[in-house]
Amino acid sequence: MQKLESATVVQPQGFRMGCASAGLKKTKGELDTAVLLAEEGTAGAGVFTTNRFAAAPVRWSREHLPADDLRGVAVNSGNANACTGPKGQEHARRMAELVAEKCGCSAEQVAVCSTGIIGHPLPIADVEAALGEACDGASDSRAAGQKGSEAILTTDRGPKTSGVRAGVDGEKFTVCGMAKGAGMIAPHLATMLCFITTDAQVPPEVLQDMLGQGVQNSFNAITVDGDRSTNDTVLALASGASGVDVESSKDTRKRFGRALRSVMQDLAIQIVQGAEGASKLLRVQVTGARTRECARSAARAVASSLLFKCAMHGEDPNWGRVVCALGYSGAWFEPDDVTISIGAATVFEEGRPTGAKASSELQGSEASIYIDLGAGQHKATMWTCDLSKDYVDINAGYAV
Amino acid sequence: MQKLESATVVQPQGFRMGCASAGLKKTKGELDTAVLLAEEGTAGAGVFTTNRFAAAPVRWSREHLPADDLRGVAVNSGNANACTGPKGQEHARRMAELVAEKCGCSAEQVAVCSTGIIGHPLPIADVEAALGEACDGASDSRAAGQKGSEAILTTDRGPKTSGVRAGVDGEKFTVCGMAKGAGMIAPHLATMLCFITTDAQVPPEVLQDMLGQGVQNSFNAITVDGDRSTNDTVLALASGASGVDVESSKDTRKRFGRALRSVMQDLAIQIVQGAEGASKLLRVQVTGARTRECARSAARAVASSLLFKCAMHGEDPNWGRVVCALGYSGAWFEPDDVTISIGAATVFEEGRPTGAKASSELQGSEASIYIDLGAGQHKATMWTCDLSKDYVDINAGYAV
Repeated sequence: MQKLESATVVQPQGFRMGCASAGLKKTKGELDTAVLLAEEGTAGAGVFTTNRFAAAPVRWSREHLPADDLRGVAVNSGNANACTGPKGQEHARRMAELVAEKCGCSAEQVAVCSTGIIGHPLPIADVEAALGEACDGASDSRAAGQKGSEAILTTDRGPKTSGVRAGVDGEKFTVCGMAKGAGMIAPHLATMLCFITTDAQVPPEVLQDMLGQGVQNSFNAITVDGDRSTNDTVLALASGASGVDVESSKDTRKRFGRALRSVMQDLAIQIVQGAEGASKLLRVQVTGARTRECARSAARAVASSLLFKCAMHGEDPNWGRVVCALGYSGAWFEPDDVTISIGAATVFEEGRPTGAKASSELQGSEASIYIDLGAGQHKATMWTCDLSKDYVDINAGYAV
Repeated sequence: MQKLESATVVQPQGFRMGCASAGLKKTKGELDTAVLLAEEGTAGAGVFTTNRFAAAPVRWSREHLPADDLRGVAVNSGNANACTGPKGQEHARRMAELVAEKCGCSAEQVAVCSTGIIGHPLPIADVEAALGEACDGASDSRAAGQKGSEAILTTDRGPKTSGVRAGVDGEKFTVCGMAKGAGMIAPHLATMLCFITTDAQVPPEVLQDMLGQGVQNSFNAITVDGDRSTNDTVLALASGASGVDVESSKDTRKRFGRALRSVMQDLAIQIVQGAEGASKLLRVQVTGARTRECARSAARAVASSLLFKCAMHGEDPNWGRVVCALGYSGAWFEPDDVTISIGAATVFEEGRPTGAKASSELQGSEASIYIDLGAGQHKATMWTCDLSKDYVDINAGYAV
């Protein structure tokens, strides 16, 4: 598997991208509308937010995926089209219809994603005009892909892209992806969006399964502030243009699975690294858990603890906060069997602190916390970031 | 029911309190050790942390409660005696033994509570000396009670006490309480402790039941940072010295229940008001839920949302964050049936914003958020505070 530099979602064969401005963002002319177009026969799969206030575009897209002939995705940033009533649902449908008209397909073959402010109706005429312009200018050039990765952003520090080329000689395929989001952390703004394209040939149900599994170890394994948005969406599109059939052998399927997971995990980690206020990427690895659920609960409790995140921000190797979070995580273990290491320093063992110094392990932009529960064979990893005063500033500094 | 000003836990008949310094805190001579002593026949009940890393004193006390002849509680602040191995358990026992010796009872008749830094062995000889001094000086004077409410503090802004006098003529009784804690929010420090005394006569099992129920609507209905500590303990002691038997009639039992809940809720709210970094007390009230569990989940999700707490800090009436938290709370509802009000302003109705201005509702030191889920008859209230930069400062500013 070979990592691709400066990958874009139009690098796999069979995809084009176009962008335009509908005036949804503060700066005039800033890109806020994009289309990702696919050739006939493209498989599409999606994983969506479980939030009960799912936005109109989420409701539209999840109704039509998985699909065996997805032809396009209409995206806008700057407005989430969430909590917008029946009009919002009409707007989501009209976004799909406009792209469908340009592609000569039905609206049901077009997925829709929105991200931005909640509770404001879309200026739909402007969005339709921008979508039309985006379709007309769509191309498979690297520049078009790069512009696309910028058009979907809201408060992100920069675009997040990833790509790999995998497979054996004569059976090569490509998986690329782009994402936006930094937790639901900006005022009124929401959402993590991710788009994955591949030229491998994958039946829609298989793509849906693999996407669902991949989410567990990528986007479901990160936390910024614990808030799940109304618009979260992960889409995958498989054009089959490489001619490599993922179902042709067990090995090919495995290779594709690995490539897909690699791209998803890379994008998920980029989201944490780029989270507002974040200065450190923190990896919380739990081993020795009695069940997979225990492993995940333990990792999630530590990674979500405000006290832990504050301590990491201050480069304070405060194992007491790790112990505390493990204790209320619901994971089963005997306190005396737990071992905790911060980087290379084992700070807690056999129910008490070892006295090892660990503050130097927390300097720099990345740190790892290893927790062995001594209760079984299961493991889990969560990625999170530190909690800084900048986070509070960003999220409290916007009094209306 | 009459609220008592400057109530202390020795106001109900049958209790004495004494304090001393064991040198556990930074300032030399600062009070850090206390005993609450009871006459023979005092009923005792306790509710303890569910954290798997329960501290040694918690393990000791929960083993011996409820009890029908509790004679004392030994308390120290400045050191949690948590994650201290077998030696920690020996220290907890020795604290009970020292007080037992002074009272002429067995160690099992003495409960133990500790709060402070995790993972450091107690200087047990100093603690024993201080406990002895505290026992010798114990009194039922108001001054002794006030000193006691100070001796149990760690990073608290000040003592938290509450008391009521209730019952009908000729059948009066008193319920008083004191608490410490501001969430598990200070570096290495932990814990909420609460001590309630009454001169009503209450069988230990009844006291245990009522205490457990009371916790649901008081200490389990507040959140500062969501971290449950290793040492959390709520104790209730009933001396029976007033001669009022709570079991004598249904009305008396009801009156006692109301008095107990009132004291517990008052103390719980004082903890939120005094939380480090907090500038606002926030009341999140959910009505119209399909089940009690739905009501609690919804209230807890909103009250625990970092984004919501940041917005409140900035006096930003950001209903989008309330909607978002409700959506992932797990509570059942139809989005279009939800109504959200901030103070007197209804900001969200029938699935969309009303456009009402609400920022003026957030000025001042208290604010209420009302959420009607439109799905049933159940309700729940949570109290929380805003999330400020001070919180991060306090919890990250202690690099070792």
